Amino acid sequence: MKTNFSLSGIPDFSSFDIQKRDYVLSIIKKHFIAFGFSPISTALIEKRSNLFGSYGEDGEKLIFQILKSGDYLSKTNCDLKKITSNELSENISDKALRYDLTVSFARFFSQNQSDINLPFRRYEIGPVFRADRPQKGRLRQFTQCDADIIGSKSLLLEVDLISLIDSVLTSLKLNNMVIKISNRKILEGIFQSLSINLNFSQFSTTIDKLDKIGLNKVCDLLSSHGLPVSQVKLIKNIFSFEGTYQDKKTYVLSNFNNKNLKLGFDEISFIFSQIDALKLKTHINLDFSLARGLDYYTGSIFEVVSSDNNFGSICGGGRYDQLTEKFNINNISGVGMSFGLDRLCILLDEFNLFPNKIAFSLDYMFINFGEETVSLSQYYMQKLRMLGASVEIYPEAVKINKQLSYANKRGVKFVIMIGEEEAKKQQLSVKNMIDGSQELISFETLIKKMEFGEKKN
Amino acid sequence: MKTNFSLSGIPDFSSFDIQKRDYVLSIIKKHFIAFGFSPISTALIEKRSNLFGSYGEDGEKLIFQILKSGDYLSKTNCDLKKITSNELSENISDKALRYDLTVSFARFFSQNQSDINLPFRRYEIGPVFRADRPQKGRLRQFTQCDADIIGSKSLLLEVDLISLIDSVLTSLKLNNMVIKISNRKILEGIFQSLSINLNFSQFSTTIDKLDKIGLNKVCDLLSSHGLPVSQVKLIKNIFSFEGTYQDKKTYVLSNFNNKNLKLGFDEISFIFSQIDALKLKTHINLDFSLARGLDYYTGSIFEVVSSDNNFGSICGGGRYDQLTEKFNINNISGVGMSFGLDRLCILLDEFNLFPNKIAFSLDYMFINFGEETVSLSQYYMQKLRMLGASVEIYPEAVKINKQLSYANKRGVKFVIMIGEEEAKKQQLSVKNMIDGSQELISFETLIKKMEFGEKKN
Repeated sequence: MKTNFSLSGIPDFSSFDIQKRDYVLSIIKKHFIAFGFSPISTALIEKRSNLFGSYGEDGEKLIFQILKSGDYLSKTNCDLKKITSNELSENISDKALRYDLTVSFARFFSQNQSDINLPFRRYEIGPVFRADRPQKGRLRQFTQCDADIIGSKSLLLEVDLISLIDSVLTSLKLNNMVIKISNRKILEGIFQSLSINLNFSQFSTTIDKLDKIGLNKVCDLLSSHGLPVSQVKLIKNIFSFEGTYQDKKTYVLSNFNNKNLKLGFDEISFIFSQIDALKLKTHINLDFSLARGLDYYTGSIFEVVSSDNNFGSICGGGRYDQLTEKFNINNISGVGMSFGLDRLCILLDEFNLFPNKIAFSLDYMFINFGEETVSLSQYYMQKLRMLGASVEIYPEAVKINKQLSYANKRGVKFVIMIGEEEAKKQQLSVKNMIDGSQELISFETLIKKMEFGEKKN
Repeated sequence: MKTNFSLSGIPDFSSFDIQKRDYVLSIIKKHFIAFGFSPISTALIEKRSNLFGSYGEDGEKLIFQILKSGDYLSKTNCDLKKITSNELSENISDKALRYDLTVSFARFFSQNQSDINLPFRRYEIGPVFRADRPQKGRLRQFTQCDADIIGSKSLLLEVDLISLIDSVLTSLKLNNMVIKISNRKILEGIFQSLSINLNFSQFSTTIDKLDKIGLNKVCDLLSSHGLPVSQVKLIKNIFSFEGTYQDKKTYVLSNFNNKNLKLGFDEISFIFSQIDALKLKTHINLDFSLARGLDYYTGSIFEVVSSDNNFGSICGGGRYDQLTEKFNINNISGVGMSFGLDRLCILLDEFNLFPNKIAFSLDYMFINFGEETVSLSQYYMQKLRMLGASVEIYPEAVKINKQLSYANKRGVKFVIMIGEEEAKKQQLSVKNMIDGSQELISFETLIKKMEFGEKKN
């Protein structure tokens, strides 16, 4: 049996994968910069205490915890005989892999506050880690591309991020995408108007399961936590209501009278009015079943899904008002969004949206004729590389056919041969691997023929 | 007291840091490509068993181990009452953060063998993790830039890597660097000729401490493991011997008669003869005190240090013959090298070798005059961004002075004002923040004045 040495959901990327990812990243970065964001890069490992308490109960289970180093048991006082896994973890782990880039950003801000000019627009692109059950579109190590603006409560920031999302999707030629928008205050208003034995975080986590388990099962869950039948019916109606934004708003407001609810709708109305004027290409839709799993959102929330595909959102985000409080800084409101690079790549692959593949190739490969002429080849290789060409020599003086076969598979453009004859004449045999032609020329002639004008340093 | 929310040795990078790192990375990548290397990117988390057994006893202590998820205690049979930390770790951790990129590369190769054309040249740039005691130049998360060639025993590969190192150092304008070269076979030959109660890995780890604790203490350690006085003296003489390569070789070979030792010198002699012809700019020096901490090297080893600086090597590498055996593939010899990005940046900073700093700036900032004209500003912002400009609007309609002060600190080139007056006239007030001039122009005129020729998409 073949041993599996790799971990599922924790991927490697080949050169070809990297070309695709770089294509997507170059578009995302271009728009991030056009919208005024500057890059930062935060630590991949956080203090355990920075992460716990930010992601809700379900999220915390997915945090990868790192063992303390050395003889950690000698430093704990816990009674190993009657300890639970959770208690033990708290004692023997003090670090964890970051779960997202947002909490690290809040920490970064708290530590660099004095150097930062508010409002601050930062982007960060990097891997995050979740101990989830791997499946298509759900990895345990994946790359997020985040843009956040902190230091202002203005709803124009939401407008800017939605416009940014539209620009990126349009550049990637991703049609049939929907930006779903809602506001935590609406969900909060609904929650406050209900009688149920759950706290808001638990209620919101339950609503967040709509996509996965369906409306009926969500209602069953709510019933089981004491929601009266009449209210279950109302919830069912709200979350299955079809209609325009105005219809939805009117329906909900006619059933509940709550300050938060009104505030949530006011915020969404402003955002919609601004966005209408921008005539974005992506479809935007009010969806108050949208809950977002993360605990830290307090206002607008949004998510981007493909209407042709059901493996989950490729982008999500929202407004947070208390995120930096954990790091002893109050009254900093921010709003952020995050693209999932890995899911974007799946979508582009499925819709065949990657530009024609450019096979990775090499400009020149020197044939190895043995020690006598290797030094001369090395001399020319050095010159060619300085001119910006990519060059290698076959490392062993094996039969020429074997070397040529390697060059073929490797995608080499020109093969250069310097055998005894060529060395004597101070010439090079240059074989064009595309059309098969071959000529005997001087190194100076080769250089003149090179089209490296733009590569010269 | 101010709480410290970050972990020492696990750094964040600001936009300015990122500019510096990108400068170094762009040079390294350019040369990697010129030497025929293709990029791959491997998982940041490895199976624990992939890492243990590859780095020697001292190295293994530095591996960050990740706790299993869920109620892991219920799944172990170990007796918690009398367990050591190491035994517990083996039971409750099955994953670990990668310690270097080389072992991950060997695993990658074992899994993608059928798609890979040998010899295979790959590069990888990414973070690695070591639970070390942080100090200047020693981080717990740092970035390695690796180039490896596998699938050939030819010593031309070593020559190529040394030439690559020289090209990178020369491009970075790092003078006063020394490439130290040795061969594990020499150290092995010496070891085999001694009577000492250590295995080769332990002997080599002891010699590796020379830089840190000095020759006398290393000799004391060897004595304490039973090395006879006469041999201690010999070791002292060898490792303090000054002279040319030929002198060193003659001295060692006159004192020991060992097959491995001769083989090691033959390999080094070939490499030196090839490199001499290339007339590299970096000084290259035989140093058989060089041991390299890693267990997997079997032939050539090398390391690059600054002769002006003592915080350790900025590059290291060597030949390995058995690295893929762990992953069930035999007879694959390879050679690799790794630049330490973080240390390179420290050196460039110290020697003032970064190009003149380009402050991160924004092309246009729109002043916010409140809801009435915000939509119009948004309309122009969208157009400017499509033309490749970086643009933002101040999110709140606060006093103009406050907005201008933000623009100043932010490094904005032009501030654009669309108040009631401008809106009525369909014009924009454009303030040049560099020379302070201001003009009232139409959007069309602004576009014509833009110098975005090269940015247009």
